[in-house]
Amino acid sequence: MDMISILEKKKNGQRLTREEIAAWVHGIDEGRVPDYQSSALLMAIRLRGMDAQETADLTMEMARTGGMADLTSIPGVKVDKHSTGGVGDLTTLVAAPLAAACGVPVAKMSGRALGHTGGTLDKLWSIPGLSTQLTMDQFTRQVREMGCAVIGQSKELAPVDQVLYALRDVTATVDSLPLIVSSILSKKIAAGCDAILLDVKTGSGALMPTLEDSLTLAREMVRIGKMAGRRMMALVTDMDQPLGRSIGNALEVMEAAEILKGREPGRACDLCLEVALRMVMLSFGLEEEEARRQVRDALCTGAGFAKLKEMVTAQGGDAGALEDYTRLPSAREKLALTAPEAGFISGMQAQTLGLAANLLGAGRASKEQEIDCAVGIVLNKRVGDRINCGEAFATLHVNDPAHLEEVESLVRQAVSIAPQAPKERPLIYEIIE
Amino acid sequence: MDMISILEKKKNGQRLTREEIAAWVHGIDEGRVPDYQSSALLMAIRLRGMDAQETADLTMEMARTGGMADLTSIPGVKVDKHSTGGVGDLTTLVAAPLAAACGVPVAKMSGRALGHTGGTLDKLWSIPGLSTQLTMDQFTRQVREMGCAVIGQSKELAPVDQVLYALRDVTATVDSLPLIVSSILSKKIAAGCDAILLDVKTGSGALMPTLEDSLTLAREMVRIGKMAGRRMMALVTDMDQPLGRSIGNALEVMEAAEILKGREPGRACDLCLEVALRMVMLSFGLEEEEARRQVRDALCTGAGFAKLKEMVTAQGGDAGALEDYTRLPSAREKLALTAPEAGFISGMQAQTLGLAANLLGAGRASKEQEIDCAVGIVLNKRVGDRINCGEAFATLHVNDPAHLEEVESLVRQAVSIAPQAPKERPLIYEIIE
Repeated sequence: MDMISILEKKKNGQRLTREEIAAWVHGIDEGRVPDYQSSALLMAIRLRGMDAQETADLTMEMARTGGMADLTSIPGVKVDKHSTGGVGDLTTLVAAPLAAACGVPVAKMSGRALGHTGGTLDKLWSIPGLSTQLTMDQFTRQVREMGCAVIGQSKELAPVDQVLYALRDVTATVDSLPLIVSSILSKKIAAGCDAILLDVKTGSGALMPTLEDSLTLAREMVRIGKMAGRRMMALVTDMDQPLGRSIGNALEVMEAAEILKGREPGRACDLCLEVALRMVMLSFGLEEEEARRQVRDALCTGAGFAKLKEMVTAQGGDAGALEDYTRLPSAREKLALTAPEAGFISGMQAQTLGLAANLLGAGRASKEQEIDCAVGIVLNKRVGDRINCGEAFATLHVNDPAHLEEVESLVRQAVSIAPQAPKERPLIYEIIE
Repeated sequence: MDMISILEKKKNGQRLTREEIAAWVHGIDEGRVPDYQSSALLMAIRLRGMDAQETADLTMEMARTGGMADLTSIPGVKVDKHSTGGVGDLTTLVAAPLAAACGVPVAKMSGRALGHTGGTLDKLWSIPGLSTQLTMDQFTRQVREMGCAVIGQSKELAPVDQVLYALRDVTATVDSLPLIVSSILSKKIAAGCDAILLDVKTGSGALMPTLEDSLTLAREMVRIGKMAGRRMMALVTDMDQPLGRSIGNALEVMEAAEILKGREPGRACDLCLEVALRMVMLSFGLEEEEARRQVRDALCTGAGFAKLKEMVTAQGGDAGALEDYTRLPSAREKLALTAPEAGFISGMQAQTLGLAANLLGAGRASKEQEIDCAVGIVLNKRVGDRINCGEAFATLHVNDPAHLEEVESLVRQAVSIAPQAPKERPLIYEIIE
């Protein structure tokens, strides 16, 4: 089972067997397969493809490297939730406590911000004192006792995925469906959950900008996840405009708290409810209507908000900051951007706004960069809203004015105003079960 | 001009510009481009292809790395000759002195045996005392003074080709036409000749077994070589059976001497004359008939043989060994293989016979392996010859009997006997100018 014959087969468009895929993956893990052979194979896979069975085999073999997390001490069907990455995407901060308040064991391993998209870990870190560095014991105990915990994804899970992810990044092989699917799912499967809810974004700010590609990715992930023995569901949701009105870490924590207090209806609230109710469906095997009723109750009674505060407290954070927002980091300057003409907001490009928020310090350009949790952008208007000339459509929350001019120009470029109201884009394009 | 955007373009099947190809090649040369990016690009080139301009650009940029040999001190149009590799292929040993005897400056850089095919250097080393380690000064002086010299190809010529050649070998990207063409031609162009005669083999023992692929390779090399400003000609010649009757280093030197003495007519002699006359055509711009007359003269008068002896002497070798073959290395045992039935020799698979000779010690399985110049195989019969039951069709020249059983089985497998004489295969399939 040498690498050259494996490369030869994929080059010629043939299927790789499970044994061949295992030889490659474990060869990487054990340091026997050099990067130059893996990168040639990645390019051959990018150009020749992999079928569902190959993708499932690659997923499972990567999940097996480095050991899997053991959540068996937590009773019930443990649900994980994964978003392919968005701007102003605070879903986890709201949906996880809502689902937990309904009794779903939510054992969530989250990532940091990547590119123009935010990360749940960075958002949580803006709450004073909060730590996501729990041991696996502390993590499982917290899920067992209060139903909900969020930690950073361990570097020990699916280490081969990390090797291949880094190689893909420098060999132009990121955009390969089987490689994307196996990368996401191998980590999720190694994280030990029984069920996975996927939130696959589509639109200008998404990993897959076109609806067709997003649907394909969602269907493929559900298919491969099921082949790996997991309960799976996927939502394909809009990321053409930012999900919430806030882009930036503390700003999104405030908005999440407002949603859980029932004071911020809108697209972000709607999506959080949809995500939470499907986590309930996956865990309990309930029908949609019953799950929806339970999740709405958790929102209206404040049980979801109470669960978030409980989790924050358990992880050492200042839960009072979710009531008294002055205890959260805040930026020194607030700069309103006003409309040069009257009309309707016809578009708010998520990717450009994400990059603008990063330039203010809300995200990172390289892995090592420090994040400023206080800064970001608040959208005073949303797509479809009427706006007067001179009225503010966005507010920049600024600490370091170094890139301010560029940020303002990016935000103005991202926001378009038209004489007529635009056709509303759906929030959820498809639900794949 | 970063590697990722270059990879992105080729992955999407786009043309690379000369600047992009130069950035890659010189990036390798200067140690800035890591192997894992080059190997991903090699796979993308293998699967997406390169057009003639890209191939020419890659050829010239590789030729430019490491400096080119300077043959300008030698007057006249210097001709190099390159074979894509064959079994029993002693062409250089005969054609180079014949062309030199006609006045063509032959500055030949040769390679060692590779895989199942022999190498001119290994053959020359079987002549006692002969050295191919001349300095560039000694080499050009010898060509200037006597018209002919053969040295090993310098490691300083086209060093990036050596990097890519090694990577292709371990990433299943050897079989890419633009990569084969640029690899061969970059070395030849860096070697400084004005004209190149290519002998592209076709058939079971060739780099390209099918005639179609061999023709494509020959045409592409002529085209790219002309784009690089060289006079080019290519012969597509048969390598389904071994060219000469000897396979093995000293054995082939003896056969070459016999041909130059006019005592060994046949396919090998015919091809040597064709090659030499085209070297004459390329160098002097002569018509075919006049070149043929000159080369025939050089053979009949013994001028070609005299030139070989002169060259051997100049390079420190025992020219007397070309008259008295007992001064060449010879094997301890000679073992005749006889026909189990009467009939006609209908096939002699070149590749299998080459591998059998290697097993006797005539070639190498790895770069480091020592060659035994004495051993090999002599074919007592050729394809089309009538044979009686019990008559010898081949003689093994053996020093180490370790693999003798396997060798005999390979040789018997390679040689087929049929009741009717086979249709004769052409010696030369096409001449491309």
